[in-house]
Amino acid sequence: MAAWGDRLAGVRGVLLDISGVLYDSGEGGGRPIAGSVDAVARLKRSGLKVRFCTNESQKSRGRLVGELRGLGFDVSEAEVTSPPPAARRLLQERGLRPHLLVHDEVRSEFDHIDTSNPNCVLIGDAGDHFSYRNLNRAFQVLMGLADPVLLSLGSGRYYKQSSGLMLDVGCYMKALEYACGIQAEVVGKPSPEFFRSALRELGVEAHQAVMVGDDIVGDVGGAQRCGMRALQVRTGKFRPSDEQHPEVKADGYVDNLAEAVDLLLRHADQ
Amino acid sequence: MAAWGDRLAGVRGVLLDISGVLYDSGEGGGRPIAGSVDAVARLKRSGLKVRFCTNESQKSRGRLVGELRGLGFDVSEAEVTSPPPAARRLLQERGLRPHLLVHDEVRSEFDHIDTSNPNCVLIGDAGDHFSYRNLNRAFQVLMGLADPVLLSLGSGRYYKQSSGLMLDVGCYMKALEYACGIQAEVVGKPSPEFFRSALRELGVEAHQAVMVGDDIVGDVGGAQRCGMRALQVRTGKFRPSDEQHPEVKADGYVDNLAEAVDLLLRHADQ
Repeated sequence: MAAWGDRLAGVRGVLLDISGVLYDSGEGGGRPIAGSVDAVARLKRSGLKVRFCTNESQKSRGRLVGELRGLGFDVSEAEVTSPPPAARRLLQERGLRPHLLVHDEVRSEFDHIDTSNPNCVLIGDAGDHFSYRNLNRAFQVLMGLADPVLLSLGSGRYYKQSSGLMLDVGCYMKALEYACGIQAEVVGKPSPEFFRSALRELGVEAHQAVMVGDDIVGDVGGAQRCGMRALQVRTGKFRPSDEQHPEVKADGYVDNLAEAVDLLLRHADQ
Repeated sequence: MAAWGDRLAGVRGVLLDISGVLYDSGEGGGRPIAGSVDAVARLKRSGLKVRFCTNESQKSRGRLVGELRGLGFDVSEAEVTSPPPAARRLLQERGLRPHLLVHDEVRSEFDHIDTSNPNCVLIGDAGDHFSYRNLNRAFQVLMGLADPVLLSLGSGRYYKQSSGLMLDVGCYMKALEYACGIQAEVVGKPSPEFFRSALRELGVEAHQAVMVGDDIVGDVGGAQRCGMRALQVRTGKFRPSDEQHPEVKADGYVDNLAEAVDLLLRHADQ
């Protein structure tokens, strides 16, 4: 592999995944990953542009940012790109009236969206709301549509909470895809449109940006397909087999965000 | 298409799917499909061999047969091939200790199976037991295994209850496959091994048997891959688009079991 200096040359902006990179979510607000609070602070003091890019769809941005700030992270709502606002724009642009299968807390993000007589289904990481009854209701809505549209806030397989690995929305997306014989539209990583909107908000070109995430497919593969570089951290949902993934090879593997920031501060443009 | 006489020539045995062919399940035991009680009786009075082949994994065979008899069907437990006994044999042969995610009523079929320190996960049509918590527990067991084994009692997408379409076990199988990056082993239709055991119990060769079902993939496609002929009924989960299925073409489409039996009594060997 090329030296870090070559791999990080020309980087001017950094997109940070949140869950598994900054912290592991969980009861009582979760816990920060060692070194990450300080790493974010150092990155923001540098000349590099920084933005947070998450598929979090179980909490509102307000609650997420509140929890992170409670753990000591320097982050504000305006710095976070997350699926619900992107989905809201998409629904409005296409005149879609969703049947919502989302966590109660995220429902408020769709307060001003018409949900009467639904012509699509939108699912997020609904957690305990993914009951048989609720999933079946979403299925029945889709089967009642001549041209069923399923929007999914992310396609993640699982994430890591402090209590263990947890099924993510992608699994329920797959269940509905199979049930209805359809393909969902993903709003969130690894959708290229979602990465491009994060890049616009970050204010740098793809070739000047690096994504740091714990998901080899959703973070690393997705960012690379958009022309960005991407580092995988060995925290969160990282598994050693990720480093031999058959389709995705990160531009670098680092033990944690602290190491990624050490390297960025040494080798990236500032 | 060839005349019915040619299509049914040499048929000596009939496998009947239950849900969607005999009856639509539902609250209070479900309701029979018009003409099916009489059709089963006529078939059993004929010289044709008859057996029931179901993926039912939400009820014990005893309860299922009790409900069917209550609706007027002439059927006994010994005439029914269903996934739980086949799964029990497979677990014993391979020394597998399952974590069970099945309906309470089916749990008793595994009473004498060691479920301590599980080395596989077995899922059935668990209905309301498919909570986020229960599915996540099954996921965590699989992720904790060096060589994860997932057994699924069927791979159906959905079935029809009198109250509407209901998600079947296949959707949850797909969710776990995606979450863990694995492939489940299906015990039940359309597994060839399952059809072959039904044929052995029916006592005829594959080329002498016809399957009658409402599922174009699980019943019709599965039976045909085993060398049987197969008719699809336009009841239960049948949808008009099934008659233009891209991969599976039934040997005949009939309005209901009554029409299938009319044709069989006229054209099959007896």
